[in-house]
Amino acid sequence: MSPTSVAEVYINDTSEVNPTDQTDLIPYASRLKEGRALALDVWSIYNVANLPPDCINLGQGYMNFAPPVWIREAAEEALNQVGTNHYSHPKGRLRLRQAIKDFYGPQLGKDLDVESEILITSGANEGIYSVFVAFLEPGDEVIMFEPFFDQYLAAVTFNSGVPVYVPLHPQMDKEKPTSDDWVIDFDELRCAITPRTKIIIVNTPHNPVGKVFTREELEKIADLAKEHNFMVMADEVYDSLVFDGKEHVRIATLPGMWERTVTVGSAGKLFAATGWRIGWLIGPSYIIHPTLAATTRIVFCSNSPLQEASAVGLEQAKARGFVDQQLQEYEERRAILTEGFDRLGMKYTMPEGSYFVLLNVSSLQWPETYPFPQSVLGRGRDFRASWFIAMEVGVSSIPVSEFYCVEHCAIGEDYARFAFCKDADTLRRAVERLQGLAKFLKKS
Amino acid sequence: MSPTSVAEVYINDTSEVNPTDQTDLIPYASRLKEGRALALDVWSIYNVANLPPDCINLGQGYMNFAPPVWIREAAEEALNQVGTNHYSHPKGRLRLRQAIKDFYGPQLGKDLDVESEILITSGANEGIYSVFVAFLEPGDEVIMFEPFFDQYLAAVTFNSGVPVYVPLHPQMDKEKPTSDDWVIDFDELRCAITPRTKIIIVNTPHNPVGKVFTREELEKIADLAKEHNFMVMADEVYDSLVFDGKEHVRIATLPGMWERTVTVGSAGKLFAATGWRIGWLIGPSYIIHPTLAATTRIVFCSNSPLQEASAVGLEQAKARGFVDQQLQEYEERRAILTEGFDRLGMKYTMPEGSYFVLLNVSSLQWPETYPFPQSVLGRGRDFRASWFIAMEVGVSSIPVSEFYCVEHCAIGEDYARFAFCKDADTLRRAVERLQGLAKFLKKS
Repeated sequence: MSPTSVAEVYINDTSEVNPTDQTDLIPYASRLKEGRALALDVWSIYNVANLPPDCINLGQGYMNFAPPVWIREAAEEALNQVGTNHYSHPKGRLRLRQAIKDFYGPQLGKDLDVESEILITSGANEGIYSVFVAFLEPGDEVIMFEPFFDQYLAAVTFNSGVPVYVPLHPQMDKEKPTSDDWVIDFDELRCAITPRTKIIIVNTPHNPVGKVFTREELEKIADLAKEHNFMVMADEVYDSLVFDGKEHVRIATLPGMWERTVTVGSAGKLFAATGWRIGWLIGPSYIIHPTLAATTRIVFCSNSPLQEASAVGLEQAKARGFVDQQLQEYEERRAILTEGFDRLGMKYTMPEGSYFVLLNVSSLQWPETYPFPQSVLGRGRDFRASWFIAMEVGVSSIPVSEFYCVEHCAIGEDYARFAFCKDADTLRRAVERLQGLAKFLKKS
Repeated sequence: MSPTSVAEVYINDTSEVNPTDQTDLIPYASRLKEGRALALDVWSIYNVANLPPDCINLGQGYMNFAPPVWIREAAEEALNQVGTNHYSHPKGRLRLRQAIKDFYGPQLGKDLDVESEILITSGANEGIYSVFVAFLEPGDEVIMFEPFFDQYLAAVTFNSGVPVYVPLHPQMDKEKPTSDDWVIDFDELRCAITPRTKIIIVNTPHNPVGKVFTREELEKIADLAKEHNFMVMADEVYDSLVFDGKEHVRIATLPGMWERTVTVGSAGKLFAATGWRIGWLIGPSYIIHPTLAATTRIVFCSNSPLQEASAVGLEQAKARGFVDQQLQEYEERRAILTEGFDRLGMKYTMPEGSYFVLLNVSSLQWPETYPFPQSVLGRGRDFRASWFIAMEVGVSSIPVSEFYCVEHCAIGEDYARFAFCKDADTLRRAVERLQGLAKFLKKS
């Protein structure tokens, strides 16, 4: 079980669709351009293939450790049956839906109906996509807070929706800012609402900020949703990673909000199994049923053996104390990284949830003649910062301005995202390397 | 490993979206209706839940046996690594792409480029869906032969395409018709082509007819594709199941056709692992790259451990003689079912490929007062035939008129589809039961 094997698998490379690949013979659909799906993205630019060979990858958000052995054993057991190697019901396997009912029902204060209120999807990603297939008419608007998870944009535009962006504003005057200091300007949010607003995405805990939306913030969003009659997509895939005893409020539990909320969850995040592609949606039947109709046609069903294993994970997580123990491990990982930044004297956003830290790179100063590749020139300053850090000290990160619309991308330019879903030793090595940035910091 | 566990898992049930579920609060998208995605479909009507409890399920096309043990062991090995539990590259794992190159390259007469000409998808179904996301502009037309795999319809309409139907015509005057007697009327096909024709779907071996398109038929289709400049989706998921030494011609190998063909394959069909959700696309880079952009946004990537196992399957299939042996087993299964129909004196289409037999139910006569449920009344005669057979003798099948547009559904009314991807004992039991239909046959 060598963590280095992770580097071999990973994702996204430099091969975008070459402009010469577009032929008159087979023109591709315009939705790909609208969804920024063909552009050279951050995942490609900051790919391991482009960075120093021994670069420590804190760019991408996947673990360099395996899922718990008792869950993997459940997967093996499923592989040794007949039925669990064949199609599942498009709703998802009954055992997994039952486990979700038992695990999430109490948190949502609902006696969930496994037949109509729970849907298994091929990763949370495909669940999110299916909701847009099920609900967007051409021109329907979807509000998302910036920085946003980049998959939202394509999922909306591919299904003829229009993304509407509302930035979170970092209050960075504090000595020790936290993710709670990234605030919503509710006047801006109100201005973004139109009669075509169909859905708002509320991602809490938030990627990449780590923000855990407060009850008050969620109540204000809920009031707007009810007043203007739109739906809430509560992307809560990091719900098991809320630190310091902070309260994770599910917007679906606020008065009148179950009726208009679909909550998104993920076995990949919960069980350190990002490659299993098992996610789920929870909501009222009139949201789940059309979404079932969509996902049935997109993927038919999700893979069976890893659904079965995820069911065992949820069934036993509490008795094994798994979630609490994992949370404690993530708090330790977070501490290693943030104490490293403290030692270095760089500011960052202390995340209250998820597994990312936004490092403020505004104090970083590289030589004027530093040789940046074309792909990062002409982009936000953070693109150069992430490149410089990776090249100079061998730790990769992701520039945050990528997750803004063009008009707002200046807000993200001061930040690089570091993922701490890595084992403690890797994080310690990364922190040691990062001390090498000291000589490039502006004297304040 | 009890085959009965299959019955517990399966798919599709009677719960369609209740009309009262549609609320003004959250109206769903019109594409769901256009794609027939909310209608009560055959999978729901002929679901195990609606049929006698001991009914033998030959309706649904999945196996009641497990994938080969040596492939399942490869999956277990993958579960015991780190990287194979995490995200794969959206293109698919390199090892699987390499295995596909080695397995299919010679069959396609191409030295395939693993980086740009092969794409792993979350089942063949999601691959097909992604092609439509990548290539259909509103109003683009997609030609499909009837009877058609019902997922095509939704995949086209969800992505703003227009399905255009061309029926296969059964020549049933023969004493012993084969799937080769379902013929294309090329004048009809020519009439179906318009300047908006973007893609034709060629499913060979064909579900549900079992037709293996002849070289001559494929050449004529290829000539039309080149003349009118459209693309071919060659859905060849049953390519390992071509019987009696019949030649399986890949349309991508015809002159000038690689350039405009995407070929679809499936680990589920090849390795008796329908619940693994691993499929693949092979084609030129300007088809694969936009489709990669689409699938990346829909599912991000496919599950990693079962990709790794599928790679082992392809790597070792030849040396183990797996494909030949499996083919022989399927020929035996086919023989059990068709000899049963022969004994009964009912006509059927002898399939040259895939794992379905179309039984001609026109000679079946049920009592006039037979109590059919509302769901099958008002549909084609075949709906009542399938229902009657299931209730009377306890073997389920699927009526074929479902896989036609309304205008053409009379062509399918004489047929019920029986799947023989079941172990020999199950098929033998089914055949014994089916003899009970003798007393309901019209004297000819």
